[in-house]
Amino acid sequence: MTEPSATPPPVSRRRLLGYAGAGAAVGAAGFAGGIGAARATDGPHGEGVDRYAFHGTHQAGIVTPAQDRLHFAAFDVTATSRAELLLLLKAWTAAAAAMTQGRPVGGGVPLPYDAPPGDTGEAAGLPPGRLTLTFGFGPSLFRDADGKDRFGIADRQPAALRRLPHFPADALQEQRSDGDLCVQACADDPQVAVHAIRNLSRIAFGSAALRWSQLGFGRTSSTSTSQATPRNLFGFKDGTANLKAEEPKAVDEHVWVGQGDDDGAAWLADGSFLVARRINMMIETWDRTSLREQETLVGRDRHVGAPLSGGTEFTEPDLSLKGNDGQPLVAMSSHVRLAHPTQNNGVRMLRRGYNFTDGNDDLGRLDAGLFFIAYVRDPATQYIPMQTRLSRDDGLMEYLRHTGSGLFAVPPGVRKGGFLGDTLLT
Amino acid sequence: MTEPSATPPPVSRRRLLGYAGAGAAVGAAGFAGGIGAARATDGPHGEGVDRYAFHGTHQAGIVTPAQDRLHFAAFDVTATSRAELLLLLKAWTAAAAAMTQGRPVGGGVPLPYDAPPGDTGEAAGLPPGRLTLTFGFGPSLFRDADGKDRFGIADRQPAALRRLPHFPADALQEQRSDGDLCVQACADDPQVAVHAIRNLSRIAFGSAALRWSQLGFGRTSSTSTSQATPRNLFGFKDGTANLKAEEPKAVDEHVWVGQGDDDGAAWLADGSFLVARRINMMIETWDRTSLREQETLVGRDRHVGAPLSGGTEFTEPDLSLKGNDGQPLVAMSSHVRLAHPTQNNGVRMLRRGYNFTDGNDDLGRLDAGLFFIAYVRDPATQYIPMQTRLSRDDGLMEYLRHTGSGLFAVPPGVRKGGFLGDTLLT
Repeated sequence: MTEPSATPPPVSRRRLLGYAGAGAAVGAAGFAGGIGAARATDGPHGEGVDRYAFHGTHQAGIVTPAQDRLHFAAFDVTATSRAELLLLLKAWTAAAAAMTQGRPVGGGVPLPYDAPPGDTGEAAGLPPGRLTLTFGFGPSLFRDADGKDRFGIADRQPAALRRLPHFPADALQEQRSDGDLCVQACADDPQVAVHAIRNLSRIAFGSAALRWSQLGFGRTSSTSTSQATPRNLFGFKDGTANLKAEEPKAVDEHVWVGQGDDDGAAWLADGSFLVARRINMMIETWDRTSLREQETLVGRDRHVGAPLSGGTEFTEPDLSLKGNDGQPLVAMSSHVRLAHPTQNNGVRMLRRGYNFTDGNDDLGRLDAGLFFIAYVRDPATQYIPMQTRLSRDDGLMEYLRHTGSGLFAVPPGVRKGGFLGDTLLT
Repeated sequence: MTEPSATPPPVSRRRLLGYAGAGAAVGAAGFAGGIGAARATDGPHGEGVDRYAFHGTHQAGIVTPAQDRLHFAAFDVTATSRAELLLLLKAWTAAAAAMTQGRPVGGGVPLPYDAPPGDTGEAAGLPPGRLTLTFGFGPSLFRDADGKDRFGIADRQPAALRRLPHFPADALQEQRSDGDLCVQACADDPQVAVHAIRNLSRIAFGSAALRWSQLGFGRTSSTSTSQATPRNLFGFKDGTANLKAEEPKAVDEHVWVGQGDDDGAAWLADGSFLVARRINMMIETWDRTSLREQETLVGRDRHVGAPLSGGTEFTEPDLSLKGNDGQPLVAMSSHVRLAHPTQNNGVRMLRRGYNFTDGNDDLGRLDAGLFFIAYVRDPATQYIPMQTRLSRDDGLMEYLRHTGSGLFAVPPGVRKGGFLGDTLLT
């Protein structure tokens, strides 16, 4: 925490109004999911820009309608005292509150000329881009690799917050996995998302170091019924049956941690768990399989996204329907069948993944796939059993390789005057 | 060329009209620079979408207003005969003509069910996204590493098409440099750009292998006066003084190869040279320097982008003006001074670079910077002397590391009925 920008001065209401301009209605609107979605009529960077409120019961960036671009980052905390960790989280809180509203880190102009600027500047002039910043705590924050309780919080580690087990066909790379802290930056403009991670990384200098990061360029799930279903790099619509913000009861049941979920971790109430998986797709192999094979493996038709049992994209698959050959129309090893709630004790997840392409390997194959993100109330009953089953039986697994992994506890939203993790650390 | 999709059937005019829908005006409009910019009123993916004509005197993607996203790829040709190279370039031509107009590779529906789909599908339903595909030929296409003339074109190698010389402070990585062929895919939507490179790579299977590729997320130059000047990852506006499409005389002088430029390479007339440089920025170090230092190194103020000699963003820098201390206001080692045409024999370039971020290194530093692209009429008199000077004298070089490099001859645009490189190969 050696940077002048690490602890920006509190932004006064007057200054805030100054930035937001006349007519702004920051934080005014909201919807059932508890995420305030403010549509400003005027703002620091022009008219008609959109932003989401930073403060709230839950963190933004979960049921918030999925933005188009992602920069995800995991950090190792190098600070050794609880006081330093607190300083970092408070500085991140102030920076996140500013950047999500389209304001520069550190309060903006006037800049001290003989000091480094408070903000790195590459997002100046850009709209806020619906930026959301969602923070999580990894198991190693509570107990490091040696089992050490660096910050005096080991007794508050949620029972479900453990490193994910090894799944069949995992090919995890250490440099793409785990971390003490994570930040999911989502925005409509990648420059806005990258700017946010860069500035958080900069603020963390001396307290936490970037461990790994991942850019995603196309969302692969809708989290709101207002959004069209996007396509993954297999060319198929993905996330048709995803949990949506407009199902608040289901979101409460499957996403938000309840007050009584875990005796030792009441601090996590209104939070969630974030599962991150970097899933490489063997797209060159996939591209040489027939459309019939592709559709059989997925269990849906490619063009419309309808289940092979018939209907349109949003028709429920009929898993019992058989064809003339006596075989189920939705094959036994198809992804749609194996991932269907009826095959998984009614379990659902809120998925929020992104397509990625990171250059190519030495053989000229694109290093591309799906950066899977899911929010669940309890990984032990939701993600883990489903992935155990999928990784064993799903025909698609032949074309997938999991190369990165992380599980993080996502604290509740920050109340005004509070800071990230205050329910855990105070 | 073992793929069914590698040689898509020619698209009949009737079929084309079928796809484009009634009321389409594909290829209708155009502007002074010779790039046809068609604004369709109706199209395959909805109303009001924008696309640029593929055919023309010059290739699109050069003076075309810079789109927001980039996927750049370089290929090694593995085909050993001229006939195979011709097949590849013809298949690429057909695919590029389709994809830039928002149509799928291979003609689209109806898909043969027991064959791999002609198109990989992930851009289905997306608008054309102003996709442009710009192709280039590297020196090694004419003479390979052993000096072998694989395709019978060595005598047509342009004199200026040589591997770029070593510049001071170069730290080039072989796996990010050179290549026999290059493709610059630019679009408003990264999924559209990635889809294009993936499908071209797929078509090339057996004829050419992806050597390296680079995603860029934010354009760093304007190529049209209609565009606002964007910012690079140093937080500064970049490309204020760039060549613009609206200066056709200057574009003719500095970008397009003339008929008589090179006796042996008349085939390159109306083409250009593409310089690609992957420039890592030491952003963690940069972020710890004072604003004063940053502005002195750049020679402009950060907020507005005005030269330090005064004025506004588009004021010409006064390189002779001195401050009270007797020193030039625009420092001798500043980037603006050293790159100014008056300091470089009047030379100008058309820059078309993009910001990139590719995760991080082992020390937690972002692997980020500028993927520099410039189009020049003659690299020997334009890029090379300027970069020699900059790499020696520019104070910014302390914060830069060139990690990738490529020089490519960009053939003229494809006429209707022609194919990429036909002036070279027929």
